[in-house]
Amino acid sequence: MIRQKAVVLSSGGIDSTTVMAIAKHEGFEIYSLSFFYGQRHASELNAAKSVAAALGVAKHLVIRTDFQPIGGSALTDDIAVPKHRSKENMAEEIPVTYVPARNTIFLSYALGYAEVLRASDIFIGVNAIDYSGYPDCRPEYIEAFERMANLATKAGVEGIIKTKIRTPLLYMTKAEIIRKGTELGVDYSLTHSCYDPSPEGLACGQCDSCILRKKGFKEANIQDPTEYI
Amino acid sequence: MIRQKAVVLSSGGIDSTTVMAIAKHEGFEIYSLSFFYGQRHASELNAAKSVAAALGVAKHLVIRTDFQPIGGSALTDDIAVPKHRSKENMAEEIPVTYVPARNTIFLSYALGYAEVLRASDIFIGVNAIDYSGYPDCRPEYIEAFERMANLATKAGVEGIIKTKIRTPLLYMTKAEIIRKGTELGVDYSLTHSCYDPSPEGLACGQCDSCILRKKGFKEANIQDPTEYI
Repeated sequence: MIRQKAVVLSSGGIDSTTVMAIAKHEGFEIYSLSFFYGQRHASELNAAKSVAAALGVAKHLVIRTDFQPIGGSALTDDIAVPKHRSKENMAEEIPVTYVPARNTIFLSYALGYAEVLRASDIFIGVNAIDYSGYPDCRPEYIEAFERMANLATKAGVEGIIKTKIRTPLLYMTKAEIIRKGTELGVDYSLTHSCYDPSPEGLACGQCDSCILRKKGFKEANIQDPTEYI
Repeated sequence: MIRQKAVVLSSGGIDSTTVMAIAKHEGFEIYSLSFFYGQRHASELNAAKSVAAALGVAKHLVIRTDFQPIGGSALTDDIAVPKHRSKENMAEEIPVTYVPARNTIFLSYALGYAEVLRASDIFIGVNAIDYSGYPDCRPEYIEAFERMANLATKAGVEGIIKTKIRTPLLYMTKAEIIRKGTELGVDYSLTHSCYDPSPEGLACGQCDSCILRKKGFKEANIQDPTEYI
């Protein structure tokens, strides 16, 4: 039996790893795609690699690229990563950790890869609840991208492939995501969330991403396997 | 007086160079953006640099990235670049020189850069006449990208910037493009079109791109300054 292929964007974090487990559970042959773009640390990439191996992907591809010359974000620039923001602020403001057009760039590469693979499904772990401050995590953005995608490619235009941008986590809380992944057998000790880890790769426990992670495990009533500083 | 900023995608070829001259003529301060993505040769990038200097851009940015692992094109893979195709074939078929989702990826970076610069106009030299075989050179694709772009960014969502994807060459023939550029003072000897240049960077004169270029100058009744092998 030939399995349908899917491209899964992977950061090595909780969300994209859960998405990958969901895609696998749906029966897809997984092609995971990660980016090395001048993050301050390689922990994310190592996590993405471990996750890909654990979930038995057909191929894990790392694209090297460069956002640094463009600027505009605390994740690639020398702006300090903010700590201890309130939940309200995190939901309402567009955070400085926002990388301009990042999801658009990632999805564009995924679209090219999907076309080459003849894969119709592209999975991305966007979430409109915890990341409501990021414009490119909202459903109307995803729909607009999908529409554009089906006009962008040879396979789309020839009617061979109808591209679908799959966002199974869109309306899930972090706790629901963690419960879902746990149910599907995800080993979250392999994943990495921290924006600002120690040189040894330990999570800081204080940035937005660590706070959301801790809170998620707590609310899911599942033990957090993360080793914090 | 503060001039409006524009991001101009530049390959160092005739089309993007003419687009840049048009943007300059409209009064924009130009931020040119080129990509180094494992092309077989660096002639394109050298041309883009010379063009940026000649047109006095505010900044010329080169993004290094990588399409090779994705595969799917004669421009980044080891498929031979086709020579001497008929004009009919060039217009009807999607050529093997098509890079999956390339314009989508380029425009996505341009969108990120534009957001950081607070620039509303992104110029791209797509053409629906000579490149009708490329899905991502058609007006319906450009409109869909623009719509998505205005949902993708902080500046778009906050209503600070309405992104416009500017395609002044969309319905121009190569001869019309060359006439327009010449009128605006473009020095086409700085530009590079060939898909398959000699090791010294000389144009082959035989690939699709060289054929279109030669034909364009001939029809425009303007001398082609290109040195062919």
